[in-house]
Amino acid sequence: MEHGGNVLKIGKEIGVGPHEIVDFSANINPFQIPDELMQVITQAQKNVSIYPDPEYYELRKALANYSSTEIERIVPGNGAAQIIHDVIKLINPEKTMLPVPTFSEYEAALKVTGSNVVHFKMEITNNFELNVGELIKHIDESFDLLVLCNPNNPTGNLIMKKEMEQILEKCQKVGCKVIVDEAFIEFVAASERFTMASEAERWNNLIVIRAFTKIFAIPGIRLGYGVHGCLALSNNHRKYAVPWSVNVFAESLKDYINSVEASVYIKKISETIKLEKEIMEERIKKMEAFTVFPSHANFLLIRLIDHEKYNVERVCSWLLKRRILIRNCNNFNGMPSRFFRVAVKKKEENDQLIDSLLYINNSILNNKQC
Amino acid sequence: MEHGGNVLKIGKEIGVGPHEIVDFSANINPFQIPDELMQVITQAQKNVSIYPDPEYYELRKALANYSSTEIERIVPGNGAAQIIHDVIKLINPEKTMLPVPTFSEYEAALKVTGSNVVHFKMEITNNFELNVGELIKHIDESFDLLVLCNPNNPTGNLIMKKEMEQILEKCQKVGCKVIVDEAFIEFVAASERFTMASEAERWNNLIVIRAFTKIFAIPGIRLGYGVHGCLALSNNHRKYAVPWSVNVFAESLKDYINSVEASVYIKKISETIKLEKEIMEERIKKMEAFTVFPSHANFLLIRLIDHEKYNVERVCSWLLKRRILIRNCNNFNGMPSRFFRVAVKKKEENDQLIDSLLYINNSILNNKQC
Repeated sequence: MEHGGNVLKIGKEIGVGPHEIVDFSANINPFQIPDELMQVITQAQKNVSIYPDPEYYELRKALANYSSTEIERIVPGNGAAQIIHDVIKLINPEKTMLPVPTFSEYEAALKVTGSNVVHFKMEITNNFELNVGELIKHIDESFDLLVLCNPNNPTGNLIMKKEMEQILEKCQKVGCKVIVDEAFIEFVAASERFTMASEAERWNNLIVIRAFTKIFAIPGIRLGYGVHGCLALSNNHRKYAVPWSVNVFAESLKDYINSVEASVYIKKISETIKLEKEIMEERIKKMEAFTVFPSHANFLLIRLIDHEKYNVERVCSWLLKRRILIRNCNNFNGMPSRFFRVAVKKKEENDQLIDSLLYINNSILNNKQC
Repeated sequence: MEHGGNVLKIGKEIGVGPHEIVDFSANINPFQIPDELMQVITQAQKNVSIYPDPEYYELRKALANYSSTEIERIVPGNGAAQIIHDVIKLINPEKTMLPVPTFSEYEAALKVTGSNVVHFKMEITNNFELNVGELIKHIDESFDLLVLCNPNNPTGNLIMKKEMEQILEKCQKVGCKVIVDEAFIEFVAASERFTMASEAERWNNLIVIRAFTKIFAIPGIRLGYGVHGCLALSNNHRKYAVPWSVNVFAESLKDYINSVEASVYIKKISETIKLEKEIMEERIKKMEAFTVFPSHANFLLIRLIDHEKYNVERVCSWLLKRRILIRNCNNFNGMPSRFFRVAVKKKEENDQLIDSLLYINNSILNNKQC
């Protein structure tokens, strides 16, 4: 399964450096890493010759503080991907409910453990919103695990806390664990009203998975963490984790994430992205060749109009010739055809993308070559 | 299981910073990280906002070149610990032969998969040398895996290539895979005569595990890799590995490891350490309270004389009061009592340790308090 953001490979294929591609395929914050974070990372260089604390005590304390929960519930790891794979191996579910389309790494991790995966379709007719009532009806004693991404990738839909609690309650009754993936939660306005991390102690069947990759634009650093509702599972997870799985640069985030600067930065970025997203949405809505879907995250899901001469592959390759990389959604399980996803980037880059989409739109409407 | 090198935790306990402790407990090169490597790591900061290449093509090419093997055989990971755990999960051995005492992470990883572990004792009477003839006799069809650390930690003993080939041949006959852990191979003089990485294509049952942690003194960076004799297992390992498991700083080593500077550095460090080790050995040999064992690596295994008033815990705590940290070997499976391990460090630090050991030696011989 391919993910977005592979600018190294694609740059090589078209003969340009990774920094020369305008990458709308990876959903990461397009603004510069905060100066204070970069300073912390630079400082961490002096610790490369010391083994990281195997207990990651200070890091876990900082993550607990950041997530408004207790240190005992925190397990840090080598990016969210590591946490996803480890938690699924630990739970080792026989049968899993997976609302789709969603982030493909869950399907990949469930395949490794051989879980029977039941897809619960989020329907295009409902703007890919999760039908909570229907989902609850379908969850029964036969399920060991339910995975929810909130907000979801690639659809951008958000589950309200009240709905989340209904789901958790039903799952608790039938003995089903619930993973809530909050990789994009910081981009949601008033995210404290939606996160389940701070509710972990209330739900013994809850595991929240988070990362700083997206909000601080640091996919190269690798820091993810789990927040466990169940203290026994939290302990098992910590024992199961490979020693020194967090490198010193990732560990150094402990000195930044609870600072005033960090919270100011997150607020500013999420507001800026929200504004930019609205501008993009408005412009794309005016194009007949595209349908744009409502999104609470830092990306937009877009459908290309039915047309025998134009498909998403053609749109992708036309854009790539202009060094614009978008995410073809054809390999997302449960995703109807003709969809692609674009990250919200800086104004100038967004304009470049929108102008290109407008050109494609006009070509399609005029049935010209694009 | 505790490992060495936990200066953060121990520093906290005795109220000093990690840099104030003279750490003989972690077996890493005591000299400064090479300037050129530090430059490469600093340069990597500009890539933290880009996802690492999921295929790690350039990194794998560099590791293959460094190990005199083919790129298809290389799987990089988040430190050797990650490779150890992943490879053992993949092989999922029912029954494993583990010569002991050895690096404890193998036992830990085998416990996770529930393997039946048979310990093959390396005897103190034989200076902990592996009795290859006896080992070969004991390996039969019932074994799925044999683990050999070469040189071995904490004993420092080295298996000759000819012996290794005899072992591999017997194991191949009975369908037993062999992991050869070469975490310390760069410290061995003329290491190219001992490494099995360059022989991988000849042995379908061989997996070599290596890392740069020790030789470049970079435990905080996290870069390990596997070299597979079996291409199918290599492919499975790459598919099994969690995406983006190597961070950009670890990935940047690709631009250093095959340089002239790197090979000059490795040669210089290994020669310096060897010389220092010989000086330490000579001095400890003169102390009646200690027996030092021959070592091909960058550490020495030492036995404290039988004495009812003095045990290794007491030696450790006396040294720690002087901010010297050594590795008590009492939690190594198969290790007789009264052993400790010390890394070879810089001359001044080694002298400090040896002077302290001499003081303890004299106290014991004079039966005084130390």
